[in-house]
Amino acid sequence: MRIDPEKLKLYLVTDRRFNPDPLVEQVRRAIAGGVTCIQVREKNTSTGEFVELAAELLKLCREQKVPLIINDRIDIALAIEADGVHLGRSDMPIALARKLMGDRYIIGATASTIAEAQAAEASGADYLGVGAVVATATKADHSQVIGLDGLAKVCKSVSIPCVGIAGIDQTNAKAVRQTGAAGIAVVSAILAADDQQAAASQLRTAIENL
Amino acid sequence: MRIDPEKLKLYLVTDRRFNPDPLVEQVRRAIAGGVTCIQVREKNTSTGEFVELAAELLKLCREQKVPLIINDRIDIALAIEADGVHLGRSDMPIALARKLMGDRYIIGATASTIAEAQAAEASGADYLGVGAVVATATKADHSQVIGLDGLAKVCKSVSIPCVGIAGIDQTNAKAVRQTGAAGIAVVSAILAADDQQAAASQLRTAIENL
Repeated sequence: MRIDPEKLKLYLVTDRRFNPDPLVEQVRRAIAGGVTCIQVREKNTSTGEFVELAAELLKLCREQKVPLIINDRIDIALAIEADGVHLGRSDMPIALARKLMGDRYIIGATASTIAEAQAAEASGADYLGVGAVVATATKADHSQVIGLDGLAKVCKSVSIPCVGIAGIDQTNAKAVRQTGAAGIAVVSAILAADDQQAAASQLRTAIENL
Repeated sequence: MRIDPEKLKLYLVTDRRFNPDPLVEQVRRAIAGGVTCIQVREKNTSTGEFVELAAELLKLCREQKVPLIINDRIDIALAIEADGVHLGRSDMPIALARKLMGDRYIIGATASTIAEAQAAEASGADYLGVGAVVATATKADHSQVIGLDGLAKVCKSVSIPCVGIAGIDQTNAKAVRQTGAAGIAVVSAILAADDQQAAASQLRTAIENL
């Protein structure tokens, strides 16, 4: 297993639009609050700048023993030797990514249905981001809303760990974990909070006491 | 030498904004008119779509024995096994790209000055795109305007072949080649033409008769 399911417990996907502070500082607060995995997602950043940002985050993540996953960009992951990539539906096909990256890297994929989840597992995905759990304003990879029931069904259909994604916050974090998901993925629930560390800590507490 | 300088003679950088026809059809016309190298440049395309587009172009380029270079994206170049990448100033550092890609791939870089050109050569670039030769509305990688004199000086300063870029058209193509450049890189001079094949053919004729 390339990723310890415990590391998927509280999974943060980055988005620099919520807070003007340097991303590395925001991630530092999130990890201090209890985040267990970081996925860096940049959609309008040059490759050169992305390499620099990701390298800076990797240094922090290695110090904190938190895996760093790069959204979409295999070139960035290979360049900085990150822990893995997360591939959405419009990114590189999983099997092709596996061929380019070899066995060492974690590959995560996105799924909304049992069919998608099983296809991703068969293609070599190590974990799945499954949703949308709740409708949300943050982009959720164009996923349909599947609810807690849908999440529970997808989790049961595969042997790789699943993380619930989209619309997860303090009010539903515990319920999401109780579906059988290895963890919860959040964006704004931490990054839009006035106190990012406290927000992470409260989410972590909510999912620890099932 | 990873690239035959003859293949740099008439170098087309793609831009889908000039013509609504499928890019593969536009490239087919350009090659029929005499284009000797294709650089595919996509800035707002998903990775999945870029892989498909590049694979389709590679099939055509291989049939026509024209090298296919991918702008910026090493992941795309590796995924489809293109001939190489072209790295602008905001893309991945050349030495890092060379490390990821190995010796087989062509790596081109952008330069405006002798210092930049020599640094790129020392870092492992196989050829240079040098400009801006003329001020232009098409994006020229934020290059300063160096004119024909600047181009001639940069060409003389390195041992790798150089291609003049930006603002090159039928009126100045011959003069650009006479600076000592291995070729000319064009975008709108072919892609914005009503008859793309004829435009390519006229440019090719202009640079054949020095």
